[in-house]
Amino acid sequence: MISSLTYKIFNKNDIRIYFDINYSKRIMATNKEITNRSEGYSQWYNDIVNKAGLASHSAVRGCMVIKPYGFAIWEKMQAQLDTMFKETGHVNAYFPLFIPKSFLSKEAEHVEGFAKECAVVTHHRLMANPNGEGLVVDPEAKLEEELIVRPTSETIIWNTYRDWISSYRDLPLLINQWANVVRWELRTRMFLRTTEFLWQEGHTAHTTKKEALEETLTILDIYAKFAEEWMSVPVVKGVKTPNERFAGANDTYTIEALMQDGKALQSGTSHFLGQNFAKAFDVKFLNQANKEEYVWASSWGVSTRLMGALIMTHSDDNGLVLPPKLAPIQVVIIPIPKANGVITEVAEGIMAELKAKGISVKYDKDKKNRPGFKFAEYEMKGVPVRLAIGKRDLENGVVEVARRDTLEKESIPLEGIADYVENLLVDIQDNLLNRSKVYRAAHTTEVNSWEEFQDTLENKGGFISAHWDGTTETELEIKEATKSTIRCIPMDNLLEDGVCVFSGKPSKQRVLFAKAY
Amino acid sequence: MISSLTYKIFNKNDIRIYFDINYSKRIMATNKEITNRSEGYSQWYNDIVNKAGLASHSAVRGCMVIKPYGFAIWEKMQAQLDTMFKETGHVNAYFPLFIPKSFLSKEAEHVEGFAKECAVVTHHRLMANPNGEGLVVDPEAKLEEELIVRPTSETIIWNTYRDWISSYRDLPLLINQWANVVRWELRTRMFLRTTEFLWQEGHTAHTTKKEALEETLTILDIYAKFAEEWMSVPVVKGVKTPNERFAGANDTYTIEALMQDGKALQSGTSHFLGQNFAKAFDVKFLNQANKEEYVWASSWGVSTRLMGALIMTHSDDNGLVLPPKLAPIQVVIIPIPKANGVITEVAEGIMAELKAKGISVKYDKDKKNRPGFKFAEYEMKGVPVRLAIGKRDLENGVVEVARRDTLEKESIPLEGIADYVENLLVDIQDNLLNRSKVYRAAHTTEVNSWEEFQDTLENKGGFISAHWDGTTETELEIKEATKSTIRCIPMDNLLEDGVCVFSGKPSKQRVLFAKAY
Repeated sequence: MISSLTYKIFNKNDIRIYFDINYSKRIMATNKEITNRSEGYSQWYNDIVNKAGLASHSAVRGCMVIKPYGFAIWEKMQAQLDTMFKETGHVNAYFPLFIPKSFLSKEAEHVEGFAKECAVVTHHRLMANPNGEGLVVDPEAKLEEELIVRPTSETIIWNTYRDWISSYRDLPLLINQWANVVRWELRTRMFLRTTEFLWQEGHTAHTTKKEALEETLTILDIYAKFAEEWMSVPVVKGVKTPNERFAGANDTYTIEALMQDGKALQSGTSHFLGQNFAKAFDVKFLNQANKEEYVWASSWGVSTRLMGALIMTHSDDNGLVLPPKLAPIQVVIIPIPKANGVITEVAEGIMAELKAKGISVKYDKDKKNRPGFKFAEYEMKGVPVRLAIGKRDLENGVVEVARRDTLEKESIPLEGIADYVENLLVDIQDNLLNRSKVYRAAHTTEVNSWEEFQDTLENKGGFISAHWDGTTETELEIKEATKSTIRCIPMDNLLEDGVCVFSGKPSKQRVLFAKAY
Repeated sequence: MISSLTYKIFNKNDIRIYFDINYSKRIMATNKEITNRSEGYSQWYNDIVNKAGLASHSAVRGCMVIKPYGFAIWEKMQAQLDTMFKETGHVNAYFPLFIPKSFLSKEAEHVEGFAKECAVVTHHRLMANPNGEGLVVDPEAKLEEELIVRPTSETIIWNTYRDWISSYRDLPLLINQWANVVRWELRTRMFLRTTEFLWQEGHTAHTTKKEALEETLTILDIYAKFAEEWMSVPVVKGVKTPNERFAGANDTYTIEALMQDGKALQSGTSHFLGQNFAKAFDVKFLNQANKEEYVWASSWGVSTRLMGALIMTHSDDNGLVLPPKLAPIQVVIIPIPKANGVITEVAEGIMAELKAKGISVKYDKDKKNRPGFKFAEYEMKGVPVRLAIGKRDLENGVVEVARRDTLEKESIPLEGIADYVENLLVDIQDNLLNRSKVYRAAHTTEVNSWEEFQDTLENKGGFISAHWDGTTETELEIKEATKSTIRCIPMDNLLEDGVCVFSGKPSKQRVLFAKAY
């Protein structure tokens, strides 16, 4: 029952997780082909989620099961984000799953945003069906006030903060929670939009507007750094238009990534909430001059949607491609054609060296499957580096090293192989980021006319940098006409006089449009 | 905004967590007195939960908010348990929060156990109240089938396993999930019994009864080891009587701890499920002889209830007492009467040495509060070791070291202080366990008559080891008469002929009775 393969995985930043590599089951990849991206991008995505063993549909509409291999990637994301939050002074806490219905109504915009898509608990008991078949809701067990399964926790948290805050000495509060949330979405896609999803939500409270805004941007920077350095996903940092703001925010900041099909994916948001929730829940503090003021707030979150960004940024027609820093298995060693004493001895020597470097490695000596099957399987799983060890290789003092990102293979001397692999993992991490940056640069187009806008959107996709007159009216008309939305006003935008591509009215800066998930 | 106090905490087993110590706020302890245990044990418990900043009530009936300091302790528990699960071959996954109502009915005993206390989602949308006030449930948005917020996940998981298992090659599945669950309890107590609680639930699938049973006991051993070595809480391992079994299990194994008021606390359970859920959800596998068989199962869980066990085992009338391995702050340094250049220099030197040993340390140089206030505050928080550094101490080359478990103080030479503290933390960890063992030994009584039974229960409390005739009838009569229950049949029980203390009928072994939480 106890697995023989228990490894230590060392992250670069010194978080160590004992980790068992127990994925080569039916719950993991099967070796069937997947749809090519060119033939059906959407089906390709579903195939990867399924065949790489990341997630599956469940019996509950719009809810997914995150399978062990997918969850192991999410755990690595969580560990790193959690470290980054704690390094910047945040602490974790836990607030209730349920929100009293009346709380939702307290912030006028918030309720607009969430009341229409929430799971409502109305009863607390089932009873045997009087007709004898199964269970029915017990009408005697109706709740006095219905409870909403949290779609986000601003309301319950600010209701709590009222009890925690009375003086400037109690501030700032820098609190995060890792939680599940539920939004009753009409159309769902695994990881990208599911009824229930996992996320972290930060909720901070401050004495000044300036400090709350700084916090909002500190987090945006953490999100961008995480996306680029850990996921190898380049992102544009920007601010949302009023129309795209979080319901209840004064400003929503976002990181926007570009997928391989030319569509954008909002990957994380950080909201400056002003004093909106403090006013809705009457949260005041005594300032140093002993005067009462409303508290300033931020909230911010990333979710399992990041898994979708990861999959769609790097993967190819052979399956998942993972950046080494997030790969549950960083290196796989495969004996050719099968394990024997000599090969296993060499493999175990390499494993020991790699593990000492904090690299997670699996030696697949399973004799049921042939090397070709195994190659395809670990390609499907996105394992960054594969070492193949054969008899002739050993006679020549080399092993075959294959990298998942480029699918290149090389013969590398056994002597110094661990150092080589260590450097290769860094190289793959960098290459994935650079490749994505090149793709994004090639798919970010400045356009100066409505024709050009439509043409680019239709034939090339990607980000479109265009002048916009700043009105919600124009924004919605463009959306109506093209299904593209303003992803953000980039933070590093240059002010530049121009005319709106749609209305021809004056504009002060370009914004980024795209079709989006 | 970025805290100046960000520390690394190193667990003994090498999990490193970057951790910010940001607790000395209103959300943390206040310095008011707490009720003495002798005056009101229950109020004492509530006071500690509240004053040490562990948790608070929420606006939702029976649901608590786990505050940052309390959550930091839970995170340390999680990290260690997760490591132990992974070291024994388990992987994490995530299954939906919601369970279709019909799933609950599929296992006959299971439904009996959970249908009467569950949160039922019946609608997926709110709408503006036609009378203009607030929100009401939109009757158009009624679900076809109601969803239950999971009270435990056997049903949804075994419904999923049906798709994952077809051959013996797919087994075993050794899967755990960290999740929130909801049971609509009538009477709630923070951490001990709350409507929503956090836990881990393992769900494993096996080819043979033997293997499933071994798994059940492997986990029981992990739970017991964790309780003793990490929480310093000694536990009795045993098996539950049929009457106390998990709804749907063939056998429930338990770890039972004894609280300071003489009541037992069931602290973790591991269930051998036989083929019950496999049959209910039709999960079969092809064995090596190519014949279909139902799959064998276990499930097991510990929850935030462990926080209650931790609090009630060690704490005293000055507040929380924490075993060093689970203390978010292991050492606090307090300048006497307040910080100055010399003291701070010495403190920072000590901090650097302690941190290098993986010990979490906070230097409280806040000038607002006097040393006496700080002493009381960190006693309330259960910080295991306090160093006080004053001018005269420094002249004599010593610091005052106070240990939280015994409240003893000593002057210790500055030279070698880090080594001293390191050893002291180990000593405190051990002392807490030994002290609890002594308490338990003194409060475990063998009784041989019904009078003795009643007298012991009434006047001494604790575990009562008594002969029982093995019938549920007698068990229930004893419960009715005394409110005590059979906590377990200890694993290390000697078979010993005797007569039931209640019925006088023959008995083959003693079992452990107690009043319990």
